[in-house]
Amino acid sequence: MPTPTDTLKLGWIGAGRKGYEMAARLARGGCDIAVWNRTKSKAEPLAKYGAKVVDALQELAAKDIVFCMVSTWEDVKQVMGKLLENKQKPKMVIECSSISLEGSAELRRLLNEKQIQYLAAPVSGNAKVIKAGKLTFVVSGPKAAYEAARPYLDMMGVGSSYVGEGELSRIVKICHNVMLGVVTQSLCEITILAEKAGVPRHAFLDFLNKSVMGSMFTRYKTPALVNLDFHVTFTPKLLRKDMDLGLDAGRRFEVPMPVAALTRDLIQQMIGHGMTEEDFSTLLLMQAKASGVALKPENKEVGDGLSS
Amino acid sequence: MPTPTDTLKLGWIGAGRKGYEMAARLARGGCDIAVWNRTKSKAEPLAKYGAKVVDALQELAAKDIVFCMVSTWEDVKQVMGKLLENKQKPKMVIECSSISLEGSAELRRLLNEKQIQYLAAPVSGNAKVIKAGKLTFVVSGPKAAYEAARPYLDMMGVGSSYVGEGELSRIVKICHNVMLGVVTQSLCEITILAEKAGVPRHAFLDFLNKSVMGSMFTRYKTPALVNLDFHVTFTPKLLRKDMDLGLDAGRRFEVPMPVAALTRDLIQQMIGHGMTEEDFSTLLLMQAKASGVALKPENKEVGDGLSS
Amino acid sequence: MPTPTDTLKLGWIGAGRKGYEMAARLARGGCDIAVWNRTKSKAEPLAKYGAKVVDALQELAAKDIVFCMVSTWEDVKQVMGKLLENKQKPKMVIECSSISLEGSAELRRLLNEKQIQYLAAPVSGNAKVIKAGKLTFVVSGPKAAYEAARPYLDMMGVGSSYVGEGELSRIVKICHNVMLGVVTQSLCEITILAEKAGVPRHAFLDFLNKSVMGSMFTRYKTPALVNLDFHVTFTPKLLRKDMDLGLDAGRRFEVPMPVAALTRDLIQQMIGHGMTEEDFSTLLLMQAKASGVALKPENKEVGDGLSS
Amino acid sequence: MPTPTDTLKLGWIGAGRKGYEMAARLARGGCDIAVWNRTKSKAEPLAKYGAKVVDALQELAAKDIVFCMVSTWEDVKQVMGKLLENKQKPKMVIECSSISLEGSAELRRLLNEKQIQYLAAPVSGNAKVIKAGKLTFVVSGPKAAYEAARPYLDMMGVGSSYVGEGELSRIVKICHNVMLGVVTQSLCEITILAEKAGVPRHAFLDFLNKSVMGSMFTRYKTPALVNLDFHVTFTPKLLRKDMDLGLDAGRRFEVPMPVAALTRDLIQQMIGHGMTEEDFSTLLLMQAKASGVALKPENKEVGDGLSS
Repeated sequence: MPTPTDTLKLGWIGAGRKGYEMAARLARGGCDIAVWNRTKSKAEPLAKYGAKVVDALQELAAKDIVFCMVSTWEDVKQVMGKLLENKQKPKMVIECSSISLEGSAELRRLLNEKQIQYLAAPVSGNAKVIKAGKLTFVVSGPKAAYEAARPYLDMMGVGSSYVGEGELSRIVKICHNVMLGVVTQSLCEITILAEKAGVPRHAFLDFLNKSVMGSMFTRYKTPALVNLDFHVTFTPKLLRKDMDLGLDAGRRFEVPMPVAALTRDLIQQMIGHGMTEEDFSTLLLMQAKASGVALKPENKEVGDGLSS
Repeated sequence: MPTPTDTLKLGWIGAGRKGYEMAARLARGGCDIAVWNRTKSKAEPLAKYGAKVVDALQELAAKDIVFCMVSTWEDVKQVMGKLLENKQKPKMVIECSSISLEGSAELRRLLNEKQIQYLAAPVSGNAKVIKAGKLTFVVSGPKAAYEAARPYLDMMGVGSSYVGEGELSRIVKICHNVMLGVVTQSLCEITILAEKAGVPRHAFLDFLNKSVMGSMFTRYKTPALVNLDFHVTFTPKLLRKDMDLGLDAGRRFEVPMPVAALTRDLIQQMIGHGMTEEDFSTLLLMQAKASGVALKPENKEVGDGLSS
Repeated sequence: MPTPTDTLKLGWIGAGRKGYEMAARLARGGCDIAVWNRTKSKAEPLAKYGAKVVDALQELAAKDIVFCMVSTWEDVKQVMGKLLENKQKPKMVIECSSISLEGSAELRRLLNEKQIQYLAAPVSGNAKVIKAGKLTFVVSGPKAAYEAARPYLDMMGVGSSYVGEGELSRIVKICHNVMLGVVTQSLCEITILAEKAGVPRHAFLDFLNKSVMGSMFTRYKTPALVNLDFHVTFTPKLLRKDMDLGLDAGRRFEVPMPVAALTRDLIQQMIGHGMTEEDFSTLLLMQAKASGVALKPENKEVGDGLSS
Repeated sequence: MPTPTDTLKLGWIGAGRKGYEMAARLARGGCDIAVWNRTKSKAEPLAKYGAKVVDALQELAAKDIVFCMVSTWEDVKQVMGKLLENKQKPKMVIECSSISLEGSAELRRLLNEKQIQYLAAPVSGNAKVIKAGKLTFVVSGPKAAYEAARPYLDMMGVGSSYVGEGELSRIVKICHNVMLGVVTQSLCEITILAEKAGVPRHAFLDFLNKSVMGSMFTRYKTPALVNLDFHVTFTPKLLRKDMDLGLDAGRRFEVPMPVAALTRDLIQQMIGHGMTEEDFSTLLLMQAKASGVALKPENKEVGDGLSS
């Protein structure tokens, strides 16, 4: 595999919490990278790693690969419109935001018309995960484009997986989030069961995280479940949206998803109870109430598996 | 922490697939260890690591710590009876088999009467996991006994978790297995969804395993799910038994476990369809049938995350 | 309440299995009624009750009330288009087919533009139920229109229920069908449980039907469940469609429907197993397979609660 | 069938709310009946129908058939012990209380030893249902005993169903109560859905009750659901007990019962939320909370389908 850094010129759109960390990894790795962010000041610290922070989106148009990591499909449409409003155009666009399959397909049509290669490349991992070097990509689009982009993707974390043509990576990301919902609900059921039986949550999760069932996810959710710190990483409504996208795909492909469907309705119960502003892992509080338990923070320092 | 090897004399009962690997790790680590197995020949290869293989259970009676790793509560009762039939007795017994809470409590009464310390210490991980050095223990009993035993437990894998007095570790192990059932069902739902959408199973699971949702479990189940190799590691009926133990605990402690209960019934459906002799991960085949898909092995070499 | 028969002139579109029986009841009750059916010969026997069977849809256009009882929204659109293609128009249209909320709303707009009153009035009951005089209507639209139409509706069965403005009756009908799915699944679970315990299905259902849980539905499904006669009354795919409409409404109104969602997926399982051509009550066969039971017809003459 | 009244002498144990109404029907029907109740005054009004109210249980010992309708298995054991403490004994005992299969089997052994015929005959219907003449029995035991007793059973309501030997009727009663739980939950889901869509509960239930899905049960629960009058008829914990008995039978006979299991956990959720003292139909309140709705009584006079 060629060293990524000495070959292609990269553009990066979006320096939010995740985008910043991703761009930082490319810059620190020695890539030739120019970054644009709506609020330029947020991107500026990237300069210390060697990134060039630009004023205008159009300055990225002539790059070999332009990465896009923004919030919503509306944002994607807007920045892509601006990026391509002049004649110059990049060879490839890699879109990493969490957008819908339909949005992704619309973007593909747009880019294909202009002969720009397009990879749909959503990620698994939040900003902390990225910082810890553990991000992963799931990628779909032309295989050759993936091969060309792969060194850069792999540089940002622990690797990428190519799953096929078109928008398949978007479906895979939805499947991933469906599992996240189910695992969280299961974790809440057994954590409360263990607690009522007499096992402190931190002790229970310590074992579970070390066990074969432990994942990066169960580990980084542990501080929340132990100390009841539910600052938002992902809202109940966003999780419900992804569960609904998964169930909708299930209907379309005629795949029954009973455990996912039930989890979805347990999330809906939580939303109905008015628990919408904190993290989705307040499913633990719902489970506790349904079990007649008043939870208390254990105030234990527990690791999240990400800090070194 | 004291070096474990230069202090205590260890006895080991049971050289089945798991017990053999566990004893091997202690022997290779330099412990003074004597091993008994019903079929002595199975234990004999342990001699090459420095273990002493004995003919009679009673030869272990005077050791400091006797570990027990057999199949069922009936086996435990029998070997413990034999071990203690003369006057000599160990200072501590550590029972690692998958026995019920009731069996564990009965053993505790028996050992307490004889002033033998007792730790209930079930494990997470199959023989391959142990060989790869990734076993974990969940331990309950007197805290001081745990502290004394800990160096030996940690030597057999990646660590142990102490969860409290009495038989609490047995409940934690059941919780762990409940999660195993739920995660498997969820994995089957999303793997078949991704497949019907056009993503090969090996590509889907490659991403999932690298993602934040990936666990040692999802990784070592991957070859089965990709290549449809369902040789038994754990039968559907054994998984149903553990789900039932979990749900029974849920009833006792008044903890609703809707996702676990549903998974349990999906396993029961599989058993009703006559799928009882292969691995429980044939849940994938049930999910495929219920989705109108005829699965084929993908015949891909995929890792199990355990081999180096 | 005024005697219905001596006042208004009625038109009737659709003499399928249900429509025929409904029109017959109005005709036998002495109403002035004219009937059109695509295949005229099917409607002709209604003449013996005093109905006038017409050749052209437009002959119904000048009636006071035109009832519509056809198969699909496509059929409704077509017959309404024909009915209204000339200048004449009825005072009121009562649409009784099982069409979607959206279709019903579109029809309302169309009729409102022409100042024709419109009642959405789906029914509960199949042809046998109607023949037995036990049909019911759920009605929405302008209250005054309902009051005017009520004597005719009530004449066709055991009564009608007014639930409010607009297309509310369509949602109520969907709720009704969701319950039908859930009750059928529950019935299958307990019937197979009783059977494995040693109770013949006919004996079990005899009690259930007489008990406080018995409904017209459980009674008329009894011959199917006892004698395994699964000729279609409603296909699995149609039931799935109604469950999906119910769950979709649940999503829209943020009402979790866990039992309905689970039932929906059990129906999907059945469809995945290829059971699509017989009656939806083959859920009994799915339940039997999942319970490891080979069912046999009991060949018992059991009533359906409808025949006198 | 012989006229019941001119042949056998009847004894009746238990004049609680249900027992009183049942004995009253036999007395009014002209039977020769003697009644004992722990608190004699509660039974005394039965004298006006021609029943003899006795002071001592032993006075019933020489009757042809003794009916037993008390609260718990403990009560049954006690009254049966007293009844049979002298030499005299009845020809037959018919036990109608809601006791467990195990209790029923123990009673059968006891009575068989004394050559007393025994029918297990639990009922469907509360006191109001009985008063309205709509009680039903499910009966198991020797067929000949059933034939002899049948005229008396049928006199108390709308009929009895014979389901086989031994304690089979007890299982059937449990199945009946499982369905009661599931139907209630389904009713709550769709009633709240209809309400959020804009349909008043009384209008929705008016249709449902008249429809093919309507049962005596849905009708007599309607006032509770419409006006939120949740005085206890059956507590959440008693319903949970019956659901658990049903699921336990499902485990024993290897019948998956997914919809029943889910309903059971929704009842457990309610209990966890502290809703234990009112009627189980407070499932409606749980469903409302989970849907973000604040329910209000509609203060509508709605029938219960039982009053004439």
